[in-house]
Amino acid sequence: MKGTVFHGPHDVRVEQVDDPALKTPTDAMVRITRAGICGSDLHFYEGALPIVPGFVLGHEGVGVIEEVGAGVVALKKGDRVVVSGVVACGRCYFCRRGQSSQCAESGSAIFGYGANSAGKLGWLGGAQSEVVRVPMADYTCFALPDAIDDDAAVFLADMLPTAFFGALNGNIRPGDTVAIFGCGPVGLCAVMCAKLFGPAQVIAVDSIPYRLELARKLGATPVNRGSGSGSSLQAIAELTDGRGADVTIEAVGKENALNSAIMSARGGGTVSVIGVFGMPWFNFPIYHAFTHDLTFRIGLANINAHIPELVRLMESGAIDPRPLISHVMPLDDAAKGYDIFSARTDNVMKVLLKP
Amino acid sequence: MKGTVFHGPHDVRVEQVDDPALKTPTDAMVRITRAGICGSDLHFYEGALPIVPGFVLGHEGVGVIEEVGAGVVALKKGDRVVVSGVVACGRCYFCRRGQSSQCAESGSAIFGYGANSAGKLGWLGGAQSEVVRVPMADYTCFALPDAIDDDAAVFLADMLPTAFFGALNGNIRPGDTVAIFGCGPVGLCAVMCAKLFGPAQVIAVDSIPYRLELARKLGATPVNRGSGSGSSLQAIAELTDGRGADVTIEAVGKENALNSAIMSARGGGTVSVIGVFGMPWFNFPIYHAFTHDLTFRIGLANINAHIPELVRLMESGAIDPRPLISHVMPLDDAAKGYDIFSARTDNVMKVLLKP
Amino acid sequence: MKGTVFHGPHDVRVEQVDDPALKTPTDAMVRITRAGICGSDLHFYEGALPIVPGFVLGHEGVGVIEEVGAGVVALKKGDRVVVSGVVACGRCYFCRRGQSSQCAESGSAIFGYGANSAGKLGWLGGAQSEVVRVPMADYTCFALPDAIDDDAAVFLADMLPTAFFGALNGNIRPGDTVAIFGCGPVGLCAVMCAKLFGPAQVIAVDSIPYRLELARKLGATPVNRGSGSGSSLQAIAELTDGRGADVTIEAVGKENALNSAIMSARGGGTVSVIGVFGMPWFNFPIYHAFTHDLTFRIGLANINAHIPELVRLMESGAIDPRPLISHVMPLDDAAKGYDIFSARTDNVMKVLLKP
Amino acid sequence: MKGTVFHGPHDVRVEQVDDPALKTPTDAMVRITRAGICGSDLHFYEGALPIVPGFVLGHEGVGVIEEVGAGVVALKKGDRVVVSGVVACGRCYFCRRGQSSQCAESGSAIFGYGANSAGKLGWLGGAQSEVVRVPMADYTCFALPDAIDDDAAVFLADMLPTAFFGALNGNIRPGDTVAIFGCGPVGLCAVMCAKLFGPAQVIAVDSIPYRLELARKLGATPVNRGSGSGSSLQAIAELTDGRGADVTIEAVGKENALNSAIMSARGGGTVSVIGVFGMPWFNFPIYHAFTHDLTFRIGLANINAHIPELVRLMESGAIDPRPLISHVMPLDDAAKGYDIFSARTDNVMKVLLKP
Repeated sequence: MKGTVFHGPHDVRVEQVDDPALKTPTDAMVRITRAGICGSDLHFYEGALPIVPGFVLGHEGVGVIEEVGAGVVALKKGDRVVVSGVVACGRCYFCRRGQSSQCAESGSAIFGYGANSAGKLGWLGGAQSEVVRVPMADYTCFALPDAIDDDAAVFLADMLPTAFFGALNGNIRPGDTVAIFGCGPVGLCAVMCAKLFGPAQVIAVDSIPYRLELARKLGATPVNRGSGSGSSLQAIAELTDGRGADVTIEAVGKENALNSAIMSARGGGTVSVIGVFGMPWFNFPIYHAFTHDLTFRIGLANINAHIPELVRLMESGAIDPRPLISHVMPLDDAAKGYDIFSARTDNVMKVLLKP
Repeated sequence: MKGTVFHGPHDVRVEQVDDPALKTPTDAMVRITRAGICGSDLHFYEGALPIVPGFVLGHEGVGVIEEVGAGVVALKKGDRVVVSGVVACGRCYFCRRGQSSQCAESGSAIFGYGANSAGKLGWLGGAQSEVVRVPMADYTCFALPDAIDDDAAVFLADMLPTAFFGALNGNIRPGDTVAIFGCGPVGLCAVMCAKLFGPAQVIAVDSIPYRLELARKLGATPVNRGSGSGSSLQAIAELTDGRGADVTIEAVGKENALNSAIMSARGGGTVSVIGVFGMPWFNFPIYHAFTHDLTFRIGLANINAHIPELVRLMESGAIDPRPLISHVMPLDDAAKGYDIFSARTDNVMKVLLKP
Repeated sequence: MKGTVFHGPHDVRVEQVDDPALKTPTDAMVRITRAGICGSDLHFYEGALPIVPGFVLGHEGVGVIEEVGAGVVALKKGDRVVVSGVVACGRCYFCRRGQSSQCAESGSAIFGYGANSAGKLGWLGGAQSEVVRVPMADYTCFALPDAIDDDAAVFLADMLPTAFFGALNGNIRPGDTVAIFGCGPVGLCAVMCAKLFGPAQVIAVDSIPYRLELARKLGATPVNRGSGSGSSLQAIAELTDGRGADVTIEAVGKENALNSAIMSARGGGTVSVIGVFGMPWFNFPIYHAFTHDLTFRIGLANINAHIPELVRLMESGAIDPRPLISHVMPLDDAAKGYDIFSARTDNVMKVLLKP
Repeated sequence: MKGTVFHGPHDVRVEQVDDPALKTPTDAMVRITRAGICGSDLHFYEGALPIVPGFVLGHEGVGVIEEVGAGVVALKKGDRVVVSGVVACGRCYFCRRGQSSQCAESGSAIFGYGANSAGKLGWLGGAQSEVVRVPMADYTCFALPDAIDDDAAVFLADMLPTAFFGALNGNIRPGDTVAIFGCGPVGLCAVMCAKLFGPAQVIAVDSIPYRLELARKLGATPVNRGSGSGSSLQAIAELTDGRGADVTIEAVGKENALNSAIMSARGGGTVSVIGVFGMPWFNFPIYHAFTHDLTFRIGLANINAHIPELVRLMESGAIDPRPLISHVMPLDDAAKGYDIFSARTDNVMKVLLKP
């Protein structure tokens, strides 16, 4: 079959790879009908995360069940499903608590991450391909209602659950002010998800005008941080009677954005991080946090735990991520998709691939 | 001054009454600029609650501070405020837990209820008048920002906090289905408040077309229960894959509506009651509740505890109750206001009075 | 094999029945080493619940896995397990929310209940026998560490999860007063479980001295309600500065106990019911509940959801239910066990059977 | 009057100072009957926090109301009270949320901190003296029942609320494992408070044998970290099936203890800090936190918010901190008390002063 293979920084190629096949009784084979390129895929592409080349990329996939192992109970051939980006068993210490990203049985295996997140399952083929093998399929594949089309469903594999996790971690209460740093795809999903918790206002911070305009359309108050970061702190203070935001969400994965998220949270507030932090250490302003009574949360989203409610929200129209899609391309054009996304040209937001 | 005095069922009159005055150091005097007629006022008016006549009605008031006692710390003459319908101290066992409607110091005193809720404070004059004395003013009056006009602010005195309490009691989670029984003013406020908790859908049940139409405009799925109640159960089942609603909110105060609210909740769901129940006993389907693992919550809203967040939500425009106002009348026309509201003529929804 | 068969009120007999066998790939066969007689079994025995005779009783079983179906992933022959009294799938809408007693796939099937709770699975043989077939075994059987012996483990099948559920439903906060009505086995388990939530005091109400003495030994303040119920209300008021208990737990399943539980809860308190209510209606004091802002919760415990944490608590010694065991008998003596338990002779508390 | 004046590192002297007097209508004067020396007082004493000398130390005081201002409602002369270490208004944005340590009206003023925490109220005299002026007295003084003696009550001013806050921040659930780093007075109070949340086990880490022995007596599993920190990680892993602790509490205020607290929390766990961190930055292992989905909470305890429930717990005997008292000295011996505490000689744990 065809798959999008990582050969090195700025070098991905769609080429023929071995057809995957069932390996264990709880596997399912899914024929991909739509896949996404995630901001975290860019970490490989841009060389920010050193990784052994030679694997098929992609952890955002939607498709149709083609075959199931003997131990699969809840799925059957022909079911239309979204595949969670992370594999989870649904039964271990962690999954029982809804913390599926820490699944002890899968070892938090992620599709299309090569050696970086092989977990206990060995390398898992990526979703930017024609077919993917899904282990622990009963808990990793989720049936889709007709009302959710493929374009929307791709967001269920990672983007929306991650944003939802970030909003949930913020412990937002009705009437709160939420400030979101970063208006890329996951930041804008966070705008949508934060609004599920009844905030009085959502402030969206970025420096790129078309992203801020999209944030505004989604109901946020846009703040252009310009080239510095002091301006966002001041704007947030002005919008909150000088207190700072009740909840801040970091959706960039960069040190200065995280600093701003910490410094713009009010005393007693919460800082929730969904940006990907690959660096080992961060210089944490601990005296500030101590005197301001801060809660700081960071992690990989519990995708599998949150897909069911997001399916219902999407099915009813309460959430619709499709305005974030800027490009839908044939799988064969995946290299071009990475290039545009990385260069941030062409008013790019979310890029989808169609095998 | 002038006040709306209750003389007996279907007999309220605006007439001269004694001017109220400060009695204790923590009192404030508030000159009323807008007052509401509440559905619970109709209980007196329609004779449903027997009560000794001769008191000024009204527990929904907005106005301007005219004078404060020596012990008032947070308010001063000229402040524009909403007066909570219920008096609370802010410091007792109950107030500290946010359960201000159970305040041990005020005895849950309500304005304009005559002998029915004198609490520990003696009769409190009602807000459907020119001036009202407010005990424990620091915790019972709430300053209003300019962005909230008097018409909107009246809803903060009871309607919105009650609806918010009902939604909060429902423990609504993102993706849930909420079914609200009754589309009068408090039921429609509940539609607005339920949406603060991220439901996938809000179902609104009533039998009056113009109310259902308003519910639809507020984003609910209207269900006309017709003359029976079975139809609503069936409609709710169809909208929830046969499960029933995750949360049901009773906003009528009648036995058959409460039965429907109980029977249409899913197994493990919550029934939250904000309708006023004056009858002593209710025939509760306990075996059904036992096998369906139900949570049943009923009570007087903790108004004072919830006004601050509702002020922020209203100030930012996240909530706007003004579409529910059908009539704004001079105080002198209060009798006509009661008549219309009771008769449900004239597409009446919320009636406000202007002294 | 031998099983305890229900023939009619006050007529149970240990006799030969057909050996059970695997029926579906997710079944397991468990050879019982210890079983309990539950207070709810007495409902059949005493004729309180009319039921078609001819089935093997018992939903509290501990044993060893003898055989597993092809779809069983987490268990293997020889594993020592407790079998949850209720079957659940672990994956449906309800199980994902931890509400396993409402499991859509099993239909809340209970072992040893004959036609009364056949759920979607057909009649399930009872645990008061030599071998039991366990459907959905991966989520219904739980491995036991060596530190938990069979006598203790029997309490994990129903008693302790039910008591834990009752305490959890009470939303007990540190410093609260909890009043528990009924000091039978489940009431005393509730004393133990309530203490997990840091109450300042646990009040235990009953009229039988040896039960109250056991409550006292477990750390509760015993209250002998005598022949009336007014005395318990007064005693609880005195122990709570006149407020009433923050949380009351009904562990009897009788109307007057439930009334006392409702009337002795403070304003804004919670009434949590774990007693079994087979009657269809209960005369609920709704005006009292309305003015006192009550939360009322009742249901079948989510046993499967709570076993894992109870295993950890028992393994570490934080909870030990063995002081509640009054009799351990051979399976052959089951009839005598029912007789003693029903007659409340012999200082009976918990009766266990040993096949 | 006499007060314990800070003159510089290792130089505190009990000497005559000006008598304090009422300054605002909401003040109360409290004659101190017992005061504590807190671990955070040692920061000044040991020169770890540079501070302008010349103020009376102490923020842990118990005494009797001697006089109240005209605006004090809930207290009167003769009342026996504990004085919260932090002043709070009870009414601002933060106090309404229970986040009294961020009080906007007091500016989080702390007694006996000189210029370091003057807040908005100017310097506040310390409790290691004969009389203290208490601003915002209605919300800062708490009446004591007879059942709580002065020795026990001192712990309510800071130690126990701080430990309770740390346990609460940990979001401990029944069955969890909690690991506490540091067995000084606040760490041992944390052992007591953690147990209020039903953990299966509490692990207490220190390197001083008499402290570990006291931890063991309080029900914790002691772990002697020896001279390194790797040993505590290994011990915690062994006690948790290799997972790590569900919740870790840092009660030291040192970098290596915080590192251990972070590295020994399980994936998806919570790290709660109650140690005092005066240094501006901490090298936070962010990639570890990201992949392990950590919640990190740090701050000044909301003392005023938690005193009421701790009073109830102490009154009923559910909590008794008196075993932590190692020395009770006359106020005149305060200098010796600081010396012993700082030198950690004499098996010192908690030092109290008696004016």
